[in-house]
Amino acid sequence: MSQQNHSTPFLQFTPSYTGIATFMHTPHTQNLADADMAIVGIPFDSGNTSWRVGTRFGPRSIRKNSLQIWGYNRHLQIAPTRDLKTVDYGDIICDPTRIDKTCEIIRSTVAQLLETDCKLLFLGGDHSISFPLIQAHAEKHGRLAVIHFDSHTDTDGSDIDGLDHGTPFRHAFAKGLIEPDAHIQVGIRGPLFDPNEYTEAQALGIKILTIEECFELGTTEIIRAIRDCVGDHPTYVTLDIDSIDPAYAPGTGTPEVGGFTSFQMLQLVRGLKGLNIIGCDLVEVNPLYDHGAITSILAANLAFELLSVMGKGKGLSGGS
Amino acid sequence: MSQQNHSTPFLQFTPSYTGIATFMHTPHTQNLADADMAIVGIPFDSGNTSWRVGTRFGPRSIRKNSLQIWGYNRHLQIAPTRDLKTVDYGDIICDPTRIDKTCEIIRSTVAQLLETDCKLLFLGGDHSISFPLIQAHAEKHGRLAVIHFDSHTDTDGSDIDGLDHGTPFRHAFAKGLIEPDAHIQVGIRGPLFDPNEYTEAQALGIKILTIEECFELGTTEIIRAIRDCVGDHPTYVTLDIDSIDPAYAPGTGTPEVGGFTSFQMLQLVRGLKGLNIIGCDLVEVNPLYDHGAITSILAANLAFELLSVMGKGKGLSGGS
Amino acid sequence: MSQQNHSTPFLQFTPSYTGIATFMHTPHTQNLADADMAIVGIPFDSGNTSWRVGTRFGPRSIRKNSLQIWGYNRHLQIAPTRDLKTVDYGDIICDPTRIDKTCEIIRSTVAQLLETDCKLLFLGGDHSISFPLIQAHAEKHGRLAVIHFDSHTDTDGSDIDGLDHGTPFRHAFAKGLIEPDAHIQVGIRGPLFDPNEYTEAQALGIKILTIEECFELGTTEIIRAIRDCVGDHPTYVTLDIDSIDPAYAPGTGTPEVGGFTSFQMLQLVRGLKGLNIIGCDLVEVNPLYDHGAITSILAANLAFELLSVMGKGKGLSGGS
Amino acid sequence: MSQQNHSTPFLQFTPSYTGIATFMHTPHTQNLADADMAIVGIPFDSGNTSWRVGTRFGPRSIRKNSLQIWGYNRHLQIAPTRDLKTVDYGDIICDPTRIDKTCEIIRSTVAQLLETDCKLLFLGGDHSISFPLIQAHAEKHGRLAVIHFDSHTDTDGSDIDGLDHGTPFRHAFAKGLIEPDAHIQVGIRGPLFDPNEYTEAQALGIKILTIEECFELGTTEIIRAIRDCVGDHPTYVTLDIDSIDPAYAPGTGTPEVGGFTSFQMLQLVRGLKGLNIIGCDLVEVNPLYDHGAITSILAANLAFELLSVMGKGKGLSGGS
Amino acid sequence: MSQQNHSTPFLQFTPSYTGIATFMHTPHTQNLADADMAIVGIPFDSGNTSWRVGTRFGPRSIRKNSLQIWGYNRHLQIAPTRDLKTVDYGDIICDPTRIDKTCEIIRSTVAQLLETDCKLLFLGGDHSISFPLIQAHAEKHGRLAVIHFDSHTDTDGSDIDGLDHGTPFRHAFAKGLIEPDAHIQVGIRGPLFDPNEYTEAQALGIKILTIEECFELGTTEIIRAIRDCVGDHPTYVTLDIDSIDPAYAPGTGTPEVGGFTSFQMLQLVRGLKGLNIIGCDLVEVNPLYDHGAITSILAANLAFELLSVMGKGKGLSGGS
Amino acid sequence: MSQQNHSTPFLQFTPSYTGIATFMHTPHTQNLADADMAIVGIPFDSGNTSWRVGTRFGPRSIRKNSLQIWGYNRHLQIAPTRDLKTVDYGDIICDPTRIDKTCEIIRSTVAQLLETDCKLLFLGGDHSISFPLIQAHAEKHGRLAVIHFDSHTDTDGSDIDGLDHGTPFRHAFAKGLIEPDAHIQVGIRGPLFDPNEYTEAQALGIKILTIEECFELGTTEIIRAIRDCVGDHPTYVTLDIDSIDPAYAPGTGTPEVGGFTSFQMLQLVRGLKGLNIIGCDLVEVNPLYDHGAITSILAANLAFELLSVMGKGKGLSGGS
Repeated sequence: MSQQNHSTPFLQFTPSYTGIATFMHTPHTQNLADADMAIVGIPFDSGNTSWRVGTRFGPRSIRKNSLQIWGYNRHLQIAPTRDLKTVDYGDIICDPTRIDKTCEIIRSTVAQLLETDCKLLFLGGDHSISFPLIQAHAEKHGRLAVIHFDSHTDTDGSDIDGLDHGTPFRHAFAKGLIEPDAHIQVGIRGPLFDPNEYTEAQALGIKILTIEECFELGTTEIIRAIRDCVGDHPTYVTLDIDSIDPAYAPGTGTPEVGGFTSFQMLQLVRGLKGLNIIGCDLVEVNPLYDHGAITSILAANLAFELLSVMGKGKGLSGGS
Repeated sequence: MSQQNHSTPFLQFTPSYTGIATFMHTPHTQNLADADMAIVGIPFDSGNTSWRVGTRFGPRSIRKNSLQIWGYNRHLQIAPTRDLKTVDYGDIICDPTRIDKTCEIIRSTVAQLLETDCKLLFLGGDHSISFPLIQAHAEKHGRLAVIHFDSHTDTDGSDIDGLDHGTPFRHAFAKGLIEPDAHIQVGIRGPLFDPNEYTEAQALGIKILTIEECFELGTTEIIRAIRDCVGDHPTYVTLDIDSIDPAYAPGTGTPEVGGFTSFQMLQLVRGLKGLNIIGCDLVEVNPLYDHGAITSILAANLAFELLSVMGKGKGLSGGS
Repeated sequence: MSQQNHSTPFLQFTPSYTGIATFMHTPHTQNLADADMAIVGIPFDSGNTSWRVGTRFGPRSIRKNSLQIWGYNRHLQIAPTRDLKTVDYGDIICDPTRIDKTCEIIRSTVAQLLETDCKLLFLGGDHSISFPLIQAHAEKHGRLAVIHFDSHTDTDGSDIDGLDHGTPFRHAFAKGLIEPDAHIQVGIRGPLFDPNEYTEAQALGIKILTIEECFELGTTEIIRAIRDCVGDHPTYVTLDIDSIDPAYAPGTGTPEVGGFTSFQMLQLVRGLKGLNIIGCDLVEVNPLYDHGAITSILAANLAFELLSVMGKGKGLSGGS
Repeated sequence: MSQQNHSTPFLQFTPSYTGIATFMHTPHTQNLADADMAIVGIPFDSGNTSWRVGTRFGPRSIRKNSLQIWGYNRHLQIAPTRDLKTVDYGDIICDPTRIDKTCEIIRSTVAQLLETDCKLLFLGGDHSISFPLIQAHAEKHGRLAVIHFDSHTDTDGSDIDGLDHGTPFRHAFAKGLIEPDAHIQVGIRGPLFDPNEYTEAQALGIKILTIEECFELGTTEIIRAIRDCVGDHPTYVTLDIDSIDPAYAPGTGTPEVGGFTSFQMLQLVRGLKGLNIIGCDLVEVNPLYDHGAITSILAANLAFELLSVMGKGKGLSGGS
Repeated sequence: MSQQNHSTPFLQFTPSYTGIATFMHTPHTQNLADADMAIVGIPFDSGNTSWRVGTRFGPRSIRKNSLQIWGYNRHLQIAPTRDLKTVDYGDIICDPTRIDKTCEIIRSTVAQLLETDCKLLFLGGDHSISFPLIQAHAEKHGRLAVIHFDSHTDTDGSDIDGLDHGTPFRHAFAKGLIEPDAHIQVGIRGPLFDPNEYTEAQALGIKILTIEECFELGTTEIIRAIRDCVGDHPTYVTLDIDSIDPAYAPGTGTPEVGGFTSFQMLQLVRGLKGLNIIGCDLVEVNPLYDHGAITSILAANLAFELLSVMGKGKGLSGGS
Repeated sequence: MSQQNHSTPFLQFTPSYTGIATFMHTPHTQNLADADMAIVGIPFDSGNTSWRVGTRFGPRSIRKNSLQIWGYNRHLQIAPTRDLKTVDYGDIICDPTRIDKTCEIIRSTVAQLLETDCKLLFLGGDHSISFPLIQAHAEKHGRLAVIHFDSHTDTDGSDIDGLDHGTPFRHAFAKGLIEPDAHIQVGIRGPLFDPNEYTEAQALGIKILTIEECFELGTTEIIRAIRDCVGDHPTYVTLDIDSIDPAYAPGTGTPEVGGFTSFQMLQLVRGLKGLNIIGCDLVEVNPLYDHGAITSILAANLAFELLSVMGKGKGLSGGS
């Protein structure tokens, strides 16, 4: 794709509506041996047991809406797809009829990909995929710290209930994949099924910042709380797009009113720079409810910021 | 709901935008002991392994768009929700993460409902649900004849592959639930994965009328072919909305261009009167792609025609 | 509906896309004798003389989008549909061709419903319905205090002009239904037809907090001003969804830019706890302009908060 | 508007997306003294007591989508907006809260307009407006013949019921405005509220061609039947867009499946040439449900054909 | 992409929502040396001087909606992307600000591509691109026969007017690129700017089949007329999606009511088999007006049929 | 249009859905001799070389959505369309195929219009049009100060590159039309193509307030910075709607996340009162991506505020 830049006497760039849509025009390859970072789509949405299915279309839509991102991140002084070798892996094929088989495929495929030094940014799909993703990363890095932007704790039910998009972190704790007291949830809100939901999540070792606390703290203090929580652990970042208010991110599986603005979330992600981030996912983008694609555009920008933060951690900066 | 008709000095009827939305304002009950016919929703869409998920919203959308149907069927001289005791059962709760558990729940729930004399019209959901529905009906009636409106044969793969929305009839034949040579498929078309797909379906005992054959025959001759095929067997009708052209029915999981008009399909369904129909489903209505709800409106009207045909078979006619 | 919770071995809950859509799965009944609270829809939109009709579809859309609300309100420590007997009455049938007949039907039907001890939350419909609703409540409680969230004063014209969605409070004052100096309007803004509109509203005995004043005060101070204004009068709450910014609530009859965020409005409604609230309406939700249903989702959440506040006032709390 | 054609050295025409939107770029004036034909919008939709409101936006949407119509009608050899003095009157202001006042305003305004020789084409609005329109024309011309394209008879209820969009022709017959046996309804179909609806309409003096009869006859024979019915009476044409199938005309108040194609309706309208047409309306276009504006585009083309037919009747043809 | 088929133990195929979107999962390469056929996108839409811009998004949308096409064409007994080496070139970069520079880039790029033996199918973009495409093909093959499906003649204006989407064939005739009397236009209709438009087109050497003539002839006779017209000339096929009725193809720049059904157009394209087709384009697909993507789905299927027809001409058939 | 106000006995106003749509019901005329202010549409969108075309539909959509604006500006104590003679000029016809010819037409047409004393507010179209607009105003007033609300600097590339929607201000500086150090850009943000983009813009004499700086300063301080920058120079205001966050303004060509709220932008524009504003444009409104028209509604309100500010500068105030 990128070589098209050189074939035109007209334009300095490939217009966003032109060409095969990979993430930010990065090359498509499933060979990650030489890559620094890769985008991996996981179009699985049968984990959504509660409401709006359609996140299977998330990875393609985020790719399409990433093509207008010019590439240089002024805040972090890096151009993560130019300064580093960043590629688009494509998608992992999932089976929507059987979540357990799909999770095992995700886990084993990702484990294989992690045999290289390439860092991975996953595009969901619903939040159930974070469970096999954390499994695969914990196999390599041991117990993980988790930075978790969400409106829901996703620790519903009990350990013996089946996995779905409301339970991945309960299952991850049950399997000992997450370091207790190194998991922080940011933006939590909304009516609860069980009055004790937050207490139970805290009992697992999760620090919860409700949206009210977040709005009182402000982004600088939230960032401080995140950094205090995860320290220099190998850290996995999971960003559920429904942490952001439906005005800014209507295209999602279970919208929850009263959330972050886009600016706040951009600031929060930029605030993660320098942390020991070993992998990220961005989940629950549902293009079927996304007027004007504003959710996908925001998601693409957040993916760009996540790549910048992960890339910066490699010690390879651009523009500086 | 229907009692609201009597509470207004203004209007002779409950406007379609008013009140709790059951199918055609029929009473909602899960007790079918006294009922002649019932509508049962099955909001399951994880069987869609190929394209557009969202048929979980089908039953509610068809209900909502049934409310404008005035009730008397001039062609069949019956008002199926007034002349008979027709109720809205609500929906069977499905688990989108595990198709096998869901199918077993559907099969067992329906088997229980069939212990009454009530005839059932099912609203999908994707086409995978026809497998447990045919199971339950065959448990009661023995091997069934099947009248099958579709653009796809839905006999993909092999007997040992998992069930999904492209395979229910392969599985039904494998289990001996369908009478060979008493299954007719009407409207079949589109590019094929395997050149031998039709031959293989025919080998199972299916009579295929491709869309080209249908357009040459005309509705009268198609109806004759259907009646010849099923005779007086206990007959199950399965209507995949994608048998109709996407211009008339855009809201579906796997649209296939070059299909029936709405008028043709109405005529075909009306032509089933007098047959020994013991159950019906109407599947693959996906409201997420349904501009102006025209697919749901058409589906609601086809459901009304199916009720008329089933109701007429009970020997209880209205207006005559 | 709620009994479906117990019929599934899969899920702890009825998924929001499943079953007949009543408000938050509450039982549908028109017998309010035993009920603590009831939801009543009023699908009337011919009062919209100025712009976007379609609020007749508001009640059904709010119901549908309420089904994902889990039920326990952490802020107010109550589960208003579980801790109290809360039911869904369905809708009052309106005649769109004649506003006067419709208003009389609304007034008389509601007056009858108020003969029980049940408190009512009305879902509009356009704002004209607040006039007969206030009439019916004032018949029972005497002159009312009014907490009024809106971008418009809705006191246009003169007393002898006909009722429409821009005039209900002028008519209510003209009939002596509202206690002067106990009516507070919050969020008022936008270009005016008549430069003296605010002065004239103030002359009726209305306290106006413009949006500029609101943004300067902050939610805590706004709440204080509201409480100061209504004291312990029997208080009616009317929430026009256009008080919120169109980014958060695009689906409305006369969107007015520069309004509240969803978080601010949630906080404002929660701030009403402990007041003597005898009835509420939530109006002007228009699903025809509501991409991704974000307005209906917000409205459903605000209805949940209003029920929590009203329910708390009954002295019956959950979880505490 | 049309003078803009001369101000550009680029283009031979005013692009459809350019300029103030009057019908086909005709001049806007409310002085009809010199005009041969005028377009008059009637944005009233409170007569829709049954389903989808929003036809108040019909006239503006039809205007906007008429701007691409090039102007010369090859079939009738006339350019009705170039060969004749055709103007855009704008709209009659309606009161959505009170149908009776609105109807009287329509009747009296149109009666005044008919004091000139100008022929009028009305754009609705819902079908209730045909009652005052027929009143005004019958005041001038005496009892009218009526050519009526519709899926519904619009003769519901009884003479003493109020007017709404399902009853205008019952009221017109009750007032003696229509010549018995000179009213023909074309395209009638759909489920009925009352089994006797068609017999009752026929008893009023209406000839009904159901859609089944239409599809059997073909357009040539339908046209013959129409011409036989109305003869050389002064004839009013009323075209409800729901006579056409929802695939072609989804944007309407009460879509009825199984209707005409766009080509068939174009042929039917062209077939009216030479009849003594003294006025027309085109009603029930609802842009709120009109994906890609295909209904408004079709309506604009049908309006163009109606103008061609009316204009031809003036004896003033173009191109010949 | 296609190798993903082998990496899954679940599914026999790559689901359409999975992976990087090339046309029907064909490999993406700009090296056509070994290719039999290639898809080339031309996302240019500034040639649309009259109405709805947005066809720049056509190629990507057609690709995305081609992914569900299973691959084997039963009618022509070929799997054009499996039996032949068919690749996806990607897009030619265009400059929307300057049509002349863009056309020269198209012409020269395509001329270079045609130095191989690869046959090309172009996806537009608006119809202006047919001019440089015909230029490039005529440079290789000499004067071309043209099979042209459209509702408009696209021979507007005069030879010295600038190129736009209404004039490519006038310019092609003016440059002597088309063989007189070997250009046939099928489906022509709609109001005209100039009464003499058809006569003038005929004077250029174009045979016009109006839509009325088409509907009278039927597809078999239309195909005969096409074959008679082009004989065994090297033939270029240009298919403007607006030849099809807006009910079937709403997503286009200048919709024209009263056109072909999808079935008719499929039959017409299949009827081209055996002709000496040296190149094709499919233009004017505008995804911005394409509810449920039905136009893009139809376009993808027509592209598949065009590939089948072109591929069959290579003498390399599948399945037979 | 406005005279319709007097023709109704029902309503005090022309409902927004009624009548020919000019900006805020102002009279349509191309004679500006007597006018104080005029609205001029420029429906040109081929300057969009990067992403979403469709701003050609901006002027009409802003007009349509201006009709609900009541007219009196409480903040600035003026009713700009009642207190002054404000008219709607209609649109300038553009040629989408050739940007240079279009720009020359815009420049020369506007230069002619500026021979009167009428001040002009332009509605785009894409941002490329600001170049010829600034040319025409600089011809009259000499070097201009520029107040520029945007997310992008629009000074891409080099002086010899062609004009497009990313370069108008580079070209304006190159031609010496803008006073160095009197051009302020407010709201700038987003990933960059070239790391030095801001430095290069500053080198031209532009003061940049990034969105981060804006959010730290607050609206009062931003206004102070703007006033300090432009002083009493003749000042041109250009407002790119993408300066506002996509949640509030999704309908635009190149949405950039993390921007202003609608309230902030209203406050910023109101803060311009008293400056020497000699002309304004409001660009990049794209109705094709504008769910519920919220962008067009916001744009119409911002146009109303711009008229108020410009009108106030004439020394002719209303209401005071």
